[in-house]
Amino acid sequence: MALKVDLNADMGESFGPWTMGDDAALLDIVTSANVACGFHAGDPDVMDRTMRQAIARGVGLGAHPGFADLKGFGRRNLPIPAEEVANAVAYQLGAAQAMARRAGGRIRHLKLHGALANMASVDAALARTCYQAALDVDPDLVIMVLAATAQESAARDLGCHWAGEIFADRAYNADATLVDRRLPGAVLHDAAAVGPRILAMLQAGAIITENGKHLPCRIDTICLHGDTPGAVAIARGLRDHLTQAGITLATF
Amino acid sequence: MALKVDLNADMGESFGPWTMGDDAALLDIVTSANVACGFHAGDPDVMDRTMRQAIARGVGLGAHPGFADLKGFGRRNLPIPAEEVANAVAYQLGAAQAMARRAGGRIRHLKLHGALANMASVDAALARTCYQAALDVDPDLVIMVLAATAQESAARDLGCHWAGEIFADRAYNADATLVDRRLPGAVLHDAAAVGPRILAMLQAGAIITENGKHLPCRIDTICLHGDTPGAVAIARGLRDHLTQAGITLATF
Amino acid sequence: MALKVDLNADMGESFGPWTMGDDAALLDIVTSANVACGFHAGDPDVMDRTMRQAIARGVGLGAHPGFADLKGFGRRNLPIPAEEVANAVAYQLGAAQAMARRAGGRIRHLKLHGALANMASVDAALARTCYQAALDVDPDLVIMVLAATAQESAARDLGCHWAGEIFADRAYNADATLVDRRLPGAVLHDAAAVGPRILAMLQAGAIITENGKHLPCRIDTICLHGDTPGAVAIARGLRDHLTQAGITLATF
Amino acid sequence: MALKVDLNADMGESFGPWTMGDDAALLDIVTSANVACGFHAGDPDVMDRTMRQAIARGVGLGAHPGFADLKGFGRRNLPIPAEEVANAVAYQLGAAQAMARRAGGRIRHLKLHGALANMASVDAALARTCYQAALDVDPDLVIMVLAATAQESAARDLGCHWAGEIFADRAYNADATLVDRRLPGAVLHDAAAVGPRILAMLQAGAIITENGKHLPCRIDTICLHGDTPGAVAIARGLRDHLTQAGITLATF
Repeated sequence: MALKVDLNADMGESFGPWTMGDDAALLDIVTSANVACGFHAGDPDVMDRTMRQAIARGVGLGAHPGFADLKGFGRRNLPIPAEEVANAVAYQLGAAQAMARRAGGRIRHLKLHGALANMASVDAALARTCYQAALDVDPDLVIMVLAATAQESAARDLGCHWAGEIFADRAYNADATLVDRRLPGAVLHDAAAVGPRILAMLQAGAIITENGKHLPCRIDTICLHGDTPGAVAIARGLRDHLTQAGITLATF
Repeated sequence: MALKVDLNADMGESFGPWTMGDDAALLDIVTSANVACGFHAGDPDVMDRTMRQAIARGVGLGAHPGFADLKGFGRRNLPIPAEEVANAVAYQLGAAQAMARRAGGRIRHLKLHGALANMASVDAALARTCYQAALDVDPDLVIMVLAATAQESAARDLGCHWAGEIFADRAYNADATLVDRRLPGAVLHDAAAVGPRILAMLQAGAIITENGKHLPCRIDTICLHGDTPGAVAIARGLRDHLTQAGITLATF
Repeated sequence: MALKVDLNADMGESFGPWTMGDDAALLDIVTSANVACGFHAGDPDVMDRTMRQAIARGVGLGAHPGFADLKGFGRRNLPIPAEEVANAVAYQLGAAQAMARRAGGRIRHLKLHGALANMASVDAALARTCYQAALDVDPDLVIMVLAATAQESAARDLGCHWAGEIFADRAYNADATLVDRRLPGAVLHDAAAVGPRILAMLQAGAIITENGKHLPCRIDTICLHGDTPGAVAIARGLRDHLTQAGITLATF
Repeated sequence: MALKVDLNADMGESFGPWTMGDDAALLDIVTSANVACGFHAGDPDVMDRTMRQAIARGVGLGAHPGFADLKGFGRRNLPIPAEEVANAVAYQLGAAQAMARRAGGRIRHLKLHGALANMASVDAALARTCYQAALDVDPDLVIMVLAATAQESAARDLGCHWAGEIFADRAYNADATLVDRRLPGAVLHDAAAVGPRILAMLQAGAIITENGKHLPCRIDTICLHGDTPGAVAIARGLRDHLTQAGITLATF
């Protein structure tokens, strides 16, 4: 059986005079780009530049909405009513669609960012609110969900297109949540270890927890990071390892 | 010959805890609403509320993009490169489209706000940049232009749908520019005077300057203000006067 | 025994083109003004205007720092590390001091705003962090605390100058917390009832709960609201009632 | 005759998750730090961190106020009324004073940033407005001015403490203005050339223009950049060159 998987990364996280990440390098590796929409990072100029680069390399475009919290980079849990979260998601998706259209592409998927994503991964009602708002804007959108979390449940309930995502460089607990970043081994920094680990999960069709337990789930895309030291090396190493193992890398 | 004209007003200019204008009252009078898009005023929640109210009354929806300048309400001339202005216009239009779609409507027109509108009314290249960015996002959009200014030239050159606009309550110079607000008579506050004056312009098919000169132009829509004292009374007075004169009030 | 009390209100909550509250009317009633510092409301121009008006009327100036959250008006609980809260408080206090000095006055007190105040009223460590940061900037500052809450404990522990505050128009639970706004009777709207109620508390030297229980505490100042319908009438009614009862109204 | 000069650089220009410049490296080289105040760059946390580092190294602290324009990094000319500019300067200075006090230091000088500095260097009235606002807050402040520009005239007229500044790496026109960045030779990138050039100016007591003309002026401080490639090497080279030539490097 031929396996196929998508590689995604967050992009366009610069803002005004400040740059973040090495988007150009990552765009040569990933097959999908989650573009920040100006609320937690990015601005219209960064979005335009990032999308044109992605389109030029044939990388699939996604909207990556987050909380309106530049200083906190969208990583602070904000207690916002569901209806306001829905409006914020729709607004950012629409902005991204227009920027993509003008750049000659289109937004194929949506992935929640930071604290909003974390909150939605344990709160199916919140996830559903966000996804419904996005689908109201574009019913054909692919929703990228954290595999085996409340995000996936919400997408399944809505009956929409969705893609299950796992992390390339994070260890998993027995309940499919991520091991706390502050614990040893939570984040993998060894480029050589990432490839075999992800290949094993793809072949197993399951998240493999830090204790070796298999949690069967649909794995459509693998999340790479671009803003940590060694991130590009890890990303390239994973891409090479999967390619050599005969896995096809392509957008969902 | 039956005359028809649209009445438009800027809307959705509240922000977070702060309210501005009496949108509910104006929505009973106008036939088109120019909705602020979150850069100079408005936020996703205000946009959603405003659009739903407009749709419920059958009022046509427009995007009203401005400079990203909340404190200055988009009224300060910002020296921004053309490409950045284009990105800002596209971003705001896209956001408005998504909010409209989710609310059950669609964005029919676009009108520039404040300093951006002023600058574009004397700089056809800037006007063209803004309109081209918007048309790249939606080629069927109606561009609302200040009649007989560089805005109109730009729209004509682009060969797009456009609607010519005059102001209900502002006096005109001989070159179709507005009389400086600081000069006596620049702003009309007499509700009784506005109706006959606009009716005369519609019947003449021309802007009538403060010296009585006729500047022939296409008048498709009349701009009403909502944020000045007596604004709603002037708006209602104009609507009544035009209706009684047999003018049909409807979106372009 | 002659009783003396201060009347305070939040002020300077306009922002850019948006106005809020009737500061001019309230300044004729209160003896202390808590001036927003630009993070949740206010901007340097509003601060300057507000402070000059307060100084002209002999009203005491206070800094009123809040979370950096314009859209949420500082009313959303933000999960911010203590050290960042301390920096935000010091920054806003310093800005207010400079504006006051330039306007010919000085900042005498500090009162936390909105969600930050709510969180500090049940979290003495947070309150202490905020107050310590302020006292590092000015050790002579009077800290205005919600009487009988963790705010008061923190101020007592620090051994600083402090003023105990009760609300003119809010009902109290048995533990000195405020009755939830959504419950009936939580907010008093009857101007005639407010005066006798506050007078009774002053004479008792205690908060009187909605069930009539007395919670002895130091009452140095009474908080009036300016942004609700009827607020100015309630404020004026309270002032008149206290004056007629022989209470001296003056800054602490 | 023993010569003495100060070396200054802009600092604390990071914001939230975004970093800019290599402040730690520059702090080992300069004798004065111009700390961004949160309007064009910086935030309370960055300010606190930067000031503590500067204090630990005995580097003099300055407030570096700019336009409230994060996205444009304070580099866009904003058409703001004089009174609003004055308020913005006072606000930022006060915030910086409080942060400095809390960190155990104090603000010794003030230097305008970016577009505000450029505008004030050719508009003595604007410069005077800014400086007067700052002196209203602290009459003992040292105003850092671009030598031989309208900034210097304004400071002289006010009779305040001031320090004349030249740029380490920029070519000068015959009228003491900077050669346009877009012209060849406008910015010096050769670390070896900077030292001798600045030493010659110090010994001449004059700006030496690109054509070799001498413009006599008081040179109290030399501006180093931290955010360009090779900036730290240029800064270190200049410091070494001046030290070896017997120039004392110390705050004014």
